[in-house]
Amino acid sequence: MRSPLHQNQLTLILGLFQVVFLVIFALYGSYDASALPSETKNVEEAARMTNLYPLFQDTHVMIFIGFGFLMTFLKRYGFSAVSINMLLAVFTIQWGIIVRGMASAHHGFKFTISLEQLLTADFAAAVILISMGAMLGKLSPSQYVIMAFFETPVALIVEHICVHNLQINDVGGSIIVHAFGAYFGLACAKGFGKKEQRGHTNEGSTYHTDIFAMIGAIFLWIYWPSFNAAVAATDDARQRAVANTFLSLCACTMTTFLVSQAVDKHKRFDMVHIANSTLAGGVAIGTTANVVLEPYHAMIIGVIAGAVSVIGYKYITPFLSEKLGIHDTCGVNNLHGMPGLIAGFASIAFLFIYDETRYPAQYDKIYPGMARGEDRTRMFDEKTQALNQLMAIGLVFLASTVSGYLTGLLLKLKIWDQVRDDEYYADGDYFETPGDYDFTSRIVTSVKQIEVAEYNPLSQKEV
Amino acid sequence: MRSPLHQNQLTLILGLFQVVFLVIFALYGSYDASALPSETKNVEEAARMTNLYPLFQDTHVMIFIGFGFLMTFLKRYGFSAVSINMLLAVFTIQWGIIVRGMASAHHGFKFTISLEQLLTADFAAAVILISMGAMLGKLSPSQYVIMAFFETPVALIVEHICVHNLQINDVGGSIIVHAFGAYFGLACAKGFGKKEQRGHTNEGSTYHTDIFAMIGAIFLWIYWPSFNAAVAATDDARQRAVANTFLSLCACTMTTFLVSQAVDKHKRFDMVHIANSTLAGGVAIGTTANVVLEPYHAMIIGVIAGAVSVIGYKYITPFLSEKLGIHDTCGVNNLHGMPGLIAGFASIAFLFIYDETRYPAQYDKIYPGMARGEDRTRMFDEKTQALNQLMAIGLVFLASTVSGYLTGLLLKLKIWDQVRDDEYYADGDYFETPGDYDFTSRIVTSVKQIEVAEYNPLSQKEV
Amino acid sequence: MRSPLHQNQLTLILGLFQVVFLVIFALYGSYDASALPSETKNVEEAARMTNLYPLFQDTHVMIFIGFGFLMTFLKRYGFSAVSINMLLAVFTIQWGIIVRGMASAHHGFKFTISLEQLLTADFAAAVILISMGAMLGKLSPSQYVIMAFFETPVALIVEHICVHNLQINDVGGSIIVHAFGAYFGLACAKGFGKKEQRGHTNEGSTYHTDIFAMIGAIFLWIYWPSFNAAVAATDDARQRAVANTFLSLCACTMTTFLVSQAVDKHKRFDMVHIANSTLAGGVAIGTTANVVLEPYHAMIIGVIAGAVSVIGYKYITPFLSEKLGIHDTCGVNNLHGMPGLIAGFASIAFLFIYDETRYPAQYDKIYPGMARGEDRTRMFDEKTQALNQLMAIGLVFLASTVSGYLTGLLLKLKIWDQVRDDEYYADGDYFETPGDYDFTSRIVTSVKQIEVAEYNPLSQKEV
Repeated sequence: MRSPLHQNQLTLILGLFQVVFLVIFALYGSYDASALPSETKNVEEAARMTNLYPLFQDTHVMIFIGFGFLMTFLKRYGFSAVSINMLLAVFTIQWGIIVRGMASAHHGFKFTISLEQLLTADFAAAVILISMGAMLGKLSPSQYVIMAFFETPVALIVEHICVHNLQINDVGGSIIVHAFGAYFGLACAKGFGKKEQRGHTNEGSTYHTDIFAMIGAIFLWIYWPSFNAAVAATDDARQRAVANTFLSLCACTMTTFLVSQAVDKHKRFDMVHIANSTLAGGVAIGTTANVVLEPYHAMIIGVIAGAVSVIGYKYITPFLSEKLGIHDTCGVNNLHGMPGLIAGFASIAFLFIYDETRYPAQYDKIYPGMARGEDRTRMFDEKTQALNQLMAIGLVFLASTVSGYLTGLLLKLKIWDQVRDDEYYADGDYFETPGDYDFTSRIVTSVKQIEVAEYNPLSQKEV
Repeated sequence: MRSPLHQNQLTLILGLFQVVFLVIFALYGSYDASALPSETKNVEEAARMTNLYPLFQDTHVMIFIGFGFLMTFLKRYGFSAVSINMLLAVFTIQWGIIVRGMASAHHGFKFTISLEQLLTADFAAAVILISMGAMLGKLSPSQYVIMAFFETPVALIVEHICVHNLQINDVGGSIIVHAFGAYFGLACAKGFGKKEQRGHTNEGSTYHTDIFAMIGAIFLWIYWPSFNAAVAATDDARQRAVANTFLSLCACTMTTFLVSQAVDKHKRFDMVHIANSTLAGGVAIGTTANVVLEPYHAMIIGVIAGAVSVIGYKYITPFLSEKLGIHDTCGVNNLHGMPGLIAGFASIAFLFIYDETRYPAQYDKIYPGMARGEDRTRMFDEKTQALNQLMAIGLVFLASTVSGYLTGLLLKLKIWDQVRDDEYYADGDYFETPGDYDFTSRIVTSVKQIEVAEYNPLSQKEV
Repeated sequence: MRSPLHQNQLTLILGLFQVVFLVIFALYGSYDASALPSETKNVEEAARMTNLYPLFQDTHVMIFIGFGFLMTFLKRYGFSAVSINMLLAVFTIQWGIIVRGMASAHHGFKFTISLEQLLTADFAAAVILISMGAMLGKLSPSQYVIMAFFETPVALIVEHICVHNLQINDVGGSIIVHAFGAYFGLACAKGFGKKEQRGHTNEGSTYHTDIFAMIGAIFLWIYWPSFNAAVAATDDARQRAVANTFLSLCACTMTTFLVSQAVDKHKRFDMVHIANSTLAGGVAIGTTANVVLEPYHAMIIGVIAGAVSVIGYKYITPFLSEKLGIHDTCGVNNLHGMPGLIAGFASIAFLFIYDETRYPAQYDKIYPGMARGEDRTRMFDEKTQALNQLMAIGLVFLASTVSGYLTGLLLKLKIWDQVRDDEYYADGDYFETPGDYDFTSRIVTSVKQIEVAEYNPLSQKEV
């Protein structure tokens, strides 16, 4: 039995935050000129609805349908997966707009909002939802919100340093979104871990929840090119980002099927791989989706990502759980973590593979720090830029693991509403569930015939 | 046992209507010049596929996936929900193009069709599908079609009066689409109501049908900004409509979780609230999505809508059903009705909150009646416009309830195929169902172990 | 028990193909100039992301969500449907880019890739996925891939002849995509057929798998206008293609409900018709979506397609299966085959119904062979063009059936991993399935009460 304070904790937390968000938006937030009425518009602003909005909406589907349904695979946690995904997303969107806005503010704390801010708020939500994947089923709604509250500013400040100080290219956010979210989640899982979370009877899927998860997986797969292209600077860079992501995903998906069967004892496919590892190619090409100029380079990235991801699910996730006590419910290390690192290291390699001259008049948009000034000199050369990309990877890994671990420890405190041991990975304590919840999520048997008794009208007998 | 006339009623009705529609389209319908080959195009026409089509397609997803799946929550009515939704939509789209076309015709009855007409036909479908939500599970397919047949012209004529005579601003259709559809549905439910429809054993969901419903809910949530922005007049107004809807939905969703837990006896979330009340912010900002200039105003609207909607589901829907005999299956009053009224009253408030000077050169596009002529005079001042917005609310409420109630009485006549009392909220009488239909939709028990008998091959024993 | 060679067959095949694809892309593939950095862009290239990308993404949803989920209706084959759909699509996308690229190559084997190629690669995937529908549940993963390997080049070479030599108009690919895919699939089913595939206990749906299938069906329905419009040449032609497809689908859907009920013994709707025949209007208008200038013409096409499709499911599919030994699991003949032929014959009729003068300055984009030169003469007149359209239908029918039949015979060879007779239409041999797989997919009973024994904790008793 939860205490009244714990029972009402989420109400209090959400109420407090929503009031604070409202006050901050009222005091400091305003719409960007492009969204306000005026007599004159420049052409670029006027075209945002046609240039950016479709890419934004694709990303929006990824955040709410993609992440939400991908996590419905657990047999008793479907309500939570899709609902808490929604809750954390809307929390982080508001909180992220505030944090990012203030970090970029030039005049006091004032920040402005346009389509770009809605898009980057969705990116911020992605970070938190990835971490949620590692913690899936282990936190109460209050704890998820607290996690998002602490993770968002760390992630966005690290992003700010990477983009503005180190001036890295990470167009699809594979380092600053995917790797950050994954390693924060893993570290949080370590800090929060206890043995009852591992090998739990509620883990695992049912036949139909695996199909629900594929709704999320396939929408992520379809719209990933938009995610990687959305903030690219020119139309050709966007086209390139789309095509590279598309080809990487195709090669990754072939590889996933191949390796999934190869490593399986019965030579069968594993739906966990089909739903997750097929997406690793989208992450692994993310950092360089606007850089890669040869289609087969993108495909090689995809092949590597698919193979690493399946092997991760098969061998590394169990190892982390059993040996290191890091329980990663969705295996975000395999979908976001390692592929994010691959993306980061690929960005270093491609700096040397492609010559500056292949990017006429555009190099500076991809790597602002390497732009040549009037006198043809530049702030960074390839090696400096490569070092910066490397430092960004290191910074992301360090900041995410430290902050994640501390957050995990914090969430362990008894002041927070905690999930009961036998209700890990289960909706029952936090959602009103229909009468068949228990039955539908506990069928684990091979049935040849169902014995039925004649009875009319419908009887609902409880034991 | 239905009589042959009743059994074949839908075939006759649909056949008749499709022939009539074809004849009317043949006699009076033609494509707009923008969709016909020509040697010259003006730029705006030529850009419809890039400017409008993505917003149209988002709306299209809302109508067919959004509404269709949102109504699949009933455990025995999933086939009907998603299929009849489709049938009513295609019926209303054709019928709506005809009615709206003729109402706007300048030359006899001739009407033209372009992307705009497809979009507004989808809006007309939304009206009817909202009413369907109130009647869900209570009508036979024939009755649904008859309802759509009568409701469509009333809704579109009222819309015509509101937009062309009263010259109101209702960019997202919260008054003329959402409130109309909801109050028509409630009045129809009252007119059609009988006690066997209330407290029926077939009402309620199963674990997986609640997840199916979330597919619809989330796609509605994601694409609602497109719905509210689609007919806005300029690019900045569209951006604003998108951002206002987005922020209102975020604040509304936070509030929904908060209030849903707060009002629950066990402090658990209710999936009905998560799937429906989270959307109320999209309705409540709809009328003024192009007007609101301050982000926090949109958020306040969202907070109010979320709270009102959850409270509606918790207290008002049972009250309406038990005390007033108005059974509202989907609770459309809470998702479309009350939030639609909030939208309407907000539109009055914002007329006085925002000064005309804040909309340079654009006021006339938002409120055509307040446009200043050459001599700086205008047809309406703020008060007149406010009165018109109020009159529109009144007209919509009056017209929808009277026509809805009469339609409900009409549908009660025995000439129409009627649903049997014990088959309310059930597919069985109207759809061929698979063998597990009865089993899957009747599991209401807490099971610890399933007794199975060894038997091979599969036996299918019926009692 | 499968032999190790058969067990590892897919791994070997996929590995081999992915390596070959990589090598070919490395040697011959490069990005189109529009996707490469440059200092100057022409306006049309620069606008691809706004003009084409949204239509491409809609098509992408159709391929992966649409086809994938439409095929999940089988009660024990959901994992395979959605996963193998994905596998065949990514296989065909890569293989199709290569084949089409080399067929169109001007300089040796070099081919280029831009958004157009990604789009047409999706079209190529559609061909194979339609054939997959006819073979659904009968092939092992290896066999599906082999089928795709042989079908892709035949389909694309036939397409090349139709488009470049016969210069036919088939804007939505109803002849070269839908009819080809369907008749290849039927012929393959004939060549591969054996009696154990017919009347199998694993065929048929469950209540929830029919709802899963509707996710695919409705997304196909929604985005079909984009499919038919994507490669149309001008903005007005695209608008027209959208509107024609939209109206044809609406009329088709009305007709589907009407006829589905009319032909049913109990006067109930059949979900197979709702999920499939409602789409036939999109196929049947496909070839002429850019040609038709009168809305009611599109609607008549839709009515005919809906009626033919339902009648096909009701009478022709059983006839083909029982009398001719052609087992068509998804009934692709009714959704893609016959409607594709209707589209083809409609394209001949409309050549004579519409006069050249109604297409000012655009006739040459629709029918390049009928373009008038400087001297006002033209290569083809209406009759020649009509004959070419007819020859294309004949060529597609002939090439698809011959190559399909031979592929069916080839797939029968014991060198390929074969599905066991009692595992047709079942996931179990190729996918790791959750514990409830057997139970959930075998419930075929009318249950009034479930007998439960008190037992705690959860027992998982296997028989």
